[in-house]
Amino acid sequence: APSSKLLIKGGTVVNAHHQQVADVYIEDGIIVAIKPTITVGDEVTVIDATGKFVMPGGIDPHTHLEFEFMDTVTVDDFFSGQAAALAGGTTMHIDFVIPHKGSLTAGFEAYEKKAKKACMDYGFHMAVTKWDETVSREMELMVKEKGINSFKFFLAYKGALMINDELLLEGFKKCKSLGALAMVHAENGDAVYEGQKKMIELGITGPEGHALSRPAVLEGEATARAIRLADFVNTPLYVVHVMSIDAMEEIARARKSGQRVIGEPVASGLVLDESWLWHPDFETAAKYVMSPPIRKRGHDKALQAALSTGILQLVGTDHCAFNSTQKALGIDDFRKIPNGVNGIEERMHVVWDTMVESGQISAMDYVRLTSTECARIFNIYPRKGAILPGSDADIIILNPNSSFEITAKSHHSRLDTNVFEGSRGKGKIEVTIAGGRVVWENNELKVAPGTGRYIKMSPFSYLFDGIDRRDDAYLKSLQAPVKRAKSSS
Amino acid sequence: APSSKLLIKGGTVVNAHHQQVADVYIEDGIIVAIKPTITVGDEVTVIDATGKFVMPGGIDPHTHLEFEFMDTVTVDDFFSGQAAALAGGTTMHIDFVIPHKGSLTAGFEAYEKKAKKACMDYGFHMAVTKWDETVSREMELMVKEKGINSFKFFLAYKGALMINDELLLEGFKKCKSLGALAMVHAENGDAVYEGQKKMIELGITGPEGHALSRPAVLEGEATARAIRLADFVNTPLYVVHVMSIDAMEEIARARKSGQRVIGEPVASGLVLDESWLWHPDFETAAKYVMSPPIRKRGHDKALQAALSTGILQLVGTDHCAFNSTQKALGIDDFRKIPNGVNGIEERMHVVWDTMVESGQISAMDYVRLTSTECARIFNIYPRKGAILPGSDADIIILNPNSSFEITAKSHHSRLDTNVFEGSRGKGKIEVTIAGGRVVWENNELKVAPGTGRYIKMSPFSYLFDGIDRRDDAYLKSLQAPVKRAKSSS
Amino acid sequence: APSSKLLIKGGTVVNAHHQQVADVYIEDGIIVAIKPTITVGDEVTVIDATGKFVMPGGIDPHTHLEFEFMDTVTVDDFFSGQAAALAGGTTMHIDFVIPHKGSLTAGFEAYEKKAKKACMDYGFHMAVTKWDETVSREMELMVKEKGINSFKFFLAYKGALMINDELLLEGFKKCKSLGALAMVHAENGDAVYEGQKKMIELGITGPEGHALSRPAVLEGEATARAIRLADFVNTPLYVVHVMSIDAMEEIARARKSGQRVIGEPVASGLVLDESWLWHPDFETAAKYVMSPPIRKRGHDKALQAALSTGILQLVGTDHCAFNSTQKALGIDDFRKIPNGVNGIEERMHVVWDTMVESGQISAMDYVRLTSTECARIFNIYPRKGAILPGSDADIIILNPNSSFEITAKSHHSRLDTNVFEGSRGKGKIEVTIAGGRVVWENNELKVAPGTGRYIKMSPFSYLFDGIDRRDDAYLKSLQAPVKRAKSSS
Amino acid sequence: APSSKLLIKGGTVVNAHHQQVADVYIEDGIIVAIKPTITVGDEVTVIDATGKFVMPGGIDPHTHLEFEFMDTVTVDDFFSGQAAALAGGTTMHIDFVIPHKGSLTAGFEAYEKKAKKACMDYGFHMAVTKWDETVSREMELMVKEKGINSFKFFLAYKGALMINDELLLEGFKKCKSLGALAMVHAENGDAVYEGQKKMIELGITGPEGHALSRPAVLEGEATARAIRLADFVNTPLYVVHVMSIDAMEEIARARKSGQRVIGEPVASGLVLDESWLWHPDFETAAKYVMSPPIRKRGHDKALQAALSTGILQLVGTDHCAFNSTQKALGIDDFRKIPNGVNGIEERMHVVWDTMVESGQISAMDYVRLTSTECARIFNIYPRKGAILPGSDADIIILNPNSSFEITAKSHHSRLDTNVFEGSRGKGKIEVTIAGGRVVWENNELKVAPGTGRYIKMSPFSYLFDGIDRRDDAYLKSLQAPVKRAKSSS
Ligand SMILES: [Zn+2]
Ligand SMILES: [Zn+2]
Ligand SMILES: [Zn+2]
Ligand SMILES: [Zn+2]
Ligand SMILES: [Zn+2]
Ligand SMILES: [Zn+2]
Ligand SMILES: [Zn+2]
Ligand SMILES: [Zn+2]
Repeated sequence: APSSKLLIKGGTVVNAHHQQVADVYIEDGIIVAIKPTITVGDEVTVIDATGKFVMPGGIDPHTHLEFEFMDTVTVDDFFSGQAAALAGGTTMHIDFVIPHKGSLTAGFEAYEKKAKKACMDYGFHMAVTKWDETVSREMELMVKEKGINSFKFFLAYKGALMINDELLLEGFKKCKSLGALAMVHAENGDAVYEGQKKMIELGITGPEGHALSRPAVLEGEATARAIRLADFVNTPLYVVHVMSIDAMEEIARARKSGQRVIGEPVASGLVLDESWLWHPDFETAAKYVMSPPIRKRGHDKALQAALSTGILQLVGTDHCAFNSTQKALGIDDFRKIPNGVNGIEERMHVVWDTMVESGQISAMDYVRLTSTECARIFNIYPRKGAILPGSDADIIILNPNSSFEITAKSHHSRLDTNVFEGSRGKGKIEVTIAGGRVVWENNELKVAPGTGRYIKMSPFSYLFDGIDRRDDAYLKSLQAPVKRAKSSS
Repeated sequence: APSSKLLIKGGTVVNAHHQQVADVYIEDGIIVAIKPTITVGDEVTVIDATGKFVMPGGIDPHTHLEFEFMDTVTVDDFFSGQAAALAGGTTMHIDFVIPHKGSLTAGFEAYEKKAKKACMDYGFHMAVTKWDETVSREMELMVKEKGINSFKFFLAYKGALMINDELLLEGFKKCKSLGALAMVHAENGDAVYEGQKKMIELGITGPEGHALSRPAVLEGEATARAIRLADFVNTPLYVVHVMSIDAMEEIARARKSGQRVIGEPVASGLVLDESWLWHPDFETAAKYVMSPPIRKRGHDKALQAALSTGILQLVGTDHCAFNSTQKALGIDDFRKIPNGVNGIEERMHVVWDTMVESGQISAMDYVRLTSTECARIFNIYPRKGAILPGSDADIIILNPNSSFEITAKSHHSRLDTNVFEGSRGKGKIEVTIAGGRVVWENNELKVAPGTGRYIKMSPFSYLFDGIDRRDDAYLKSLQAPVKRAKSSS
Repeated sequence: APSSKLLIKGGTVVNAHHQQVADVYIEDGIIVAIKPTITVGDEVTVIDATGKFVMPGGIDPHTHLEFEFMDTVTVDDFFSGQAAALAGGTTMHIDFVIPHKGSLTAGFEAYEKKAKKACMDYGFHMAVTKWDETVSREMELMVKEKGINSFKFFLAYKGALMINDELLLEGFKKCKSLGALAMVHAENGDAVYEGQKKMIELGITGPEGHALSRPAVLEGEATARAIRLADFVNTPLYVVHVMSIDAMEEIARARKSGQRVIGEPVASGLVLDESWLWHPDFETAAKYVMSPPIRKRGHDKALQAALSTGILQLVGTDHCAFNSTQKALGIDDFRKIPNGVNGIEERMHVVWDTMVESGQISAMDYVRLTSTECARIFNIYPRKGAILPGSDADIIILNPNSSFEITAKSHHSRLDTNVFEGSRGKGKIEVTIAGGRVVWENNELKVAPGTGRYIKMSPFSYLFDGIDRRDDAYLKSLQAPVKRAKSSS
Repeated sequence: APSSKLLIKGGTVVNAHHQQVADVYIEDGIIVAIKPTITVGDEVTVIDATGKFVMPGGIDPHTHLEFEFMDTVTVDDFFSGQAAALAGGTTMHIDFVIPHKGSLTAGFEAYEKKAKKACMDYGFHMAVTKWDETVSREMELMVKEKGINSFKFFLAYKGALMINDELLLEGFKKCKSLGALAMVHAENGDAVYEGQKKMIELGITGPEGHALSRPAVLEGEATARAIRLADFVNTPLYVVHVMSIDAMEEIARARKSGQRVIGEPVASGLVLDESWLWHPDFETAAKYVMSPPIRKRGHDKALQAALSTGILQLVGTDHCAFNSTQKALGIDDFRKIPNGVNGIEERMHVVWDTMVESGQISAMDYVRLTSTECARIFNIYPRKGAILPGSDADIIILNPNSSFEITAKSHHSRLDTNVFEGSRGKGKIEVTIAGGRVVWENNELKVAPGTGRYIKMSPFSYLFDGIDRRDDAYLKSLQAPVKRAKSSS
């Protein structure tokens, strides 16, 4: 059995707030000490990290494992998806529980089952797709008993997951009262539906029709709407998969005026562009189909820039893996191509290369936006997202002088394709430690089903700090009700 | 009988594109000549305009006469409202036909009847409040046979006039195909409904609750949404009653990127502020209740600035006159206060004083935004909106050195109140000529029911120029469909 | 001798404010009548314009003929440049008088001489490149006696034409007092100088170094600065050659807040992109060198969009023609490549094709931004810029179904190159009438030196309307000086 | 002698990245441990912090002690100013060394002397007010040997400190090469000079003239200019005393596009408004004179909002204390009123009350923007700005349930006035510990001259991370020089 004591020697230990050359000592899955020099006995496994970065394992805030969607189910389940994640330096993810026939409880139970094979820690968001008293009560149950502190609302997927503004407002109010974070998939679903019909009428049935049917203006619209309604309710908002300048600009505007809005770009949106959807080979083109779509060149750079200065806060993936045979369901109609791209395994490498190697951010920033900020938002910091005494020993060792290459041939997801196929770059994650165990080393995975833990997440994260005071200040500012004589004029 | 021949001598004749000192000769209701010096016989009535401005009569693009709304009906009908208009220098208006139980045809017929007593020229917009094949066919009928070239969609008034995005998109598409201009009342109705409930729960039942329940952010939201959906459909959009910086900024942004969006501030929004709604006297406060609400000080100046440089294009009133007794329906609940303020009589004076006297715009600009641009948008220029040979003889004479004062005691509307009560300023409209007849002179009105004409308005105004070419260019730009082998991969 | 009486029959007569099918009758160089049908005698030359557009001749607000610059002189003088203009449908231009050794008077006299060979009407702006009492007095002289109503200030060309903020402020104040329009060439000259040094240090000596040394951010900076200083002085501002999104955004922002700022894109900036400067053939690359530089793809479309909605107001060319041999002065150092591109002959075709054919603007808009707005800004409307009775008979006939092609082989400029080489499009100017004479017909020019007239331009154009009132309002708003006891505290 | 061992028990220990209830143990001026429960011997002084916040002492990034300016010298020197600071919870400040007759070395020596009486730790920025080889060399010396890592450039104070764009560019380049942070006082000095003359001409000689002569548009201009020139040079920029929406918007815009710009609002600008300058009592009005001026109501709230979401990063004071008698130098001419307000003592209370009590930020945010971010920017984190093992024991204990009141009667500055006079709020700093010694407790100060240390600050803070890589990427992106045959065409 592997030792439960580990010493990582001589690396540059990076937290979001500070980095230093130090040793890190781990016992029983917990970080015990970080000091310039730690001496240990023989029973301790020592890993040399000289010249390398020792950082908190990645936390992917946005994944869909074993997701039943569009009449099929993703190929990556909680084992294969997590194994891939670990091979890529991600040691925790937060998946979206989808209600079962509208029932949150049934949905939660289904996901509990799916997650039994977990080999890495995970948490859950939950989607809300309809509204009644039961849903409202179940939301409360989820927060108070089940460890969920975020709910997602879909403004797209008309006829399926989409909800209208009335429900969105109800949901925002409920979230606020529970201290749970409201999340939105922001595209105008009515208009997307129109756009899809139009493309089909024009004879555009291929993957390029997917992008053309849901342009960035529709993402900008829904983002603007969700932000303003959240402002109206005075509750924090998390915008998932920010794919366009249009959406980013709305977030920037809201933040400038003091509103608490979180924007999550995803790995694919940060580095790819839509031109792939025009590829003459259907299989190649179809693998890039996700919603909102990957945008034209230019959006990627703008998202990177906004991320580098904190206008956007963290990076997800929306990992949602459909194989070529599944993508082929839409060979004659892009509307039937299952939406989703990979990323859970690639995110950490892609972000390092694109953001740090290019000089846009520091290693500390990297930790913040791949791990720490996610932990803070979902209220599990500093257990997760930090290398501090007492934190879970979820750690990666990245060699900045080594190289990575991404290809479906060697990746660990079950997917037969990869949207980052052929990408190379500097900064290789050579070791992943999850819960104090070395699970990835020498390009080898050592994982076992059932070793991952469900991480309960408490409500009222820092995003809720002071909200009640602001509500009070608002009420005082109203100068109402005005006292009036019931005049008989 | 009054002479049908008129000569206006020595004034500064102002068109939107040019002004010059000239005489204007009129016969049989039509402008015949504008020349430096015109000599006429004794049979011609001569009006001396030396030192004064001779300008096209105002056209109010936004009024509600004899409007059945909120369980009552406005006090100004097509006679009293128009008489007031003429006394204030407005010689034409465009009113909103409201469908009768969803039927456009029935609505149109009802308004035809109401308008029989007209004493001034008028046109019609039409509201669309539901959607089915009949409505679609009736829209076509209205445009092709009834002289209507604009349709209005309400994004507010939940449970009554409000429509959802799906209908809005259908409406936009239909408008585009007919060459009719889509108009929106832009407030998020779902959120307004929430806001109203909240205010009542807070015990805020007075008129200030009206403003508090529907803040500017909700107007900004709906304006942004309507603009982006219109962009998606590629059809021109007209935003009625732009009341806030939030909405104006959205219009500015869209125009900067080349989108054809028209923004209409109204007289009340340009010069008043919300503080009246906090007035301790209910009657006083209630008269300022309109939707979207009059905003905080600062919005007015920003709207004026945007108007002065063409970011906003024309000024309306939303004249919708409810008496004190009607307003009192909401004495215990602001939601029951009939929405509406006056303005049809005051607009021309208020805009002159606020915009020209202050040095923000020229007299030519004044003509453009009170008359010419309205005529151009609704495709009746240069019959209306100009002092050119062949134009209808709808003319005002404004004395820039004379003063006006506004008070319910002396105004011509049937209202017992006036939101501009006590306003004074420079620039008095001393003469109004409508259809070649002097109807306002020496502070006396000479009007007769039935003398006003219905002005049919043709579709495909200048706002539609080139839309087909832009659609073509868009289609070419798609590079789709991509030719693909039906691969057997 | 050609008849001095002309009738243009059956065309669509387009003014900025209106278009109609009509005949246009001309006598002695003046437009006499525009009517649906005009019957004339045999002595009148009749031109059939059926199916074509009859429009005011173009006015180019920005040219440099016989311009001594960078140790050489442009190849197009007042004859050849104007002849080219007429062949391209432009019937007037406004050139920039450059002071002679700082003397405005000497500069004016030099340009009077240059212009003796004029074959078309012209006006003058004047540059101000230093500051003292003499300059101040000469500005007054120019406005009051010489027919100049605009002065240009260069924020670039360090060591040559560039002035600093202190002078700019003095100039703005003087302009305001004279009712003259302040114009700026907006680039930060200090930074450009730095950029040039850096490129040379990097070994980048070719034409691409020109673009790289003065990026758009420096144009945005200077535009922002000039706008804000003009706001501080409260005087209107005209920004010449707006080449970038950066500059356009500043103009848009200022206009939104009510400031009177005019933005002039130029033909080259509207349709070309910088990639030509990277062309491996020096001669080809060098012909695109102008300042500010032509920008990356994307800026062009954004400028077009802003132009289409009136955020930018008119189109110039900055026609400044240097031959290949002159451009070769900079073969070893881009700093020595004479700056300038052609456009005086191409502007009208390029703008029609790019803006009207593409559906972005109407024919009326086209007239406005190629002719009318220029005439209004420089206060010569409606003598110029309109087809109205009494206007100068400067008229073009454009056949929308005919095609044009641009090539140095057949153009009328003396240049041996053309930056629009090979451009084709729809909309051919088949006839140009200048001062009532047909000077261009059947692809033939009939022009004679000395037939062009100097058009004096009066100060206090419409842009100055109300400025004194706004100054008054500003002063009242200060609530100052505050009355204070000279306290002995 | 007081014990050099301290234990702070039971408080909520707040760092920028995390807060927890814990004990803090200190020895010899250094923080040794932070743990839930620490047990100590009798020799250790124990401070009970139950129910209170234990936070890093404030660091004021912007002060002027013993500053010779406008023919006088500030009343607070390095002893009195620092004593006041400590009483208000600030344990370090960074002052501005002003060159002596242009000599940086001489300036530094003068400030070394002034600082001998220091009772608290301090660092230095240095101003650069002219340019030559000597200055360039001295900058290098300051960075490499003297512990200075930031240089300030004044775009205002014409004829005194002001520099032009040429020098600014030289300065930026030098800063970049040294890894030193460029700072700017951003107002357009030429225009300010004009504005001052104008006010005097208008007879406005009182303090209100100060605000009127240098409106926000001039701050916006200079901020935009400095940002763009810094972008051109690709070096980080720090904008001191951001006082207006105009400046803040520029910073927001730059950050959105990925530029590293730091914005520092100051205590006075965050909570006061300009109306005081209109006060009829000269003494009262004059105490609010600082540059850039305190702005109209509205700017304050906008700055607070931007600060709350990280658009602005930290809070300073520009503490620059002139007594009533000194302010009276300008009794007849506001230009002679010494510019400056207090704040070094009040900042920590004012920011807590305005930002935390109002619900706009969390306690962690408070630590970040009053202390941590300053330490990070000036590269002294985590020695300063954190409560971590090894950090200097600069600590405050704030009681959120206690109240503060600000008045000149009881403050510790030598000033006879206070711009925050009469302010009350919640959140009282009850204990200040500096370098491990309790210097403020029970409203009593225990300080001694000479106990403060000069903190050297190293260059190349995190703001410089990756700059070289971005330069490399930029160079690669140029695709230049283009290889060209020296053609003989
Ligand atoms: Zn989604
Ligand atoms: Zn997703
Ligand atoms: Zn309405
Ligand atoms: Zn209405
Ligand atoms: Zn120029
Ligand atoms: Zn030029
Ligand atoms: Zn300063
Ligand atoms: Zn200072």
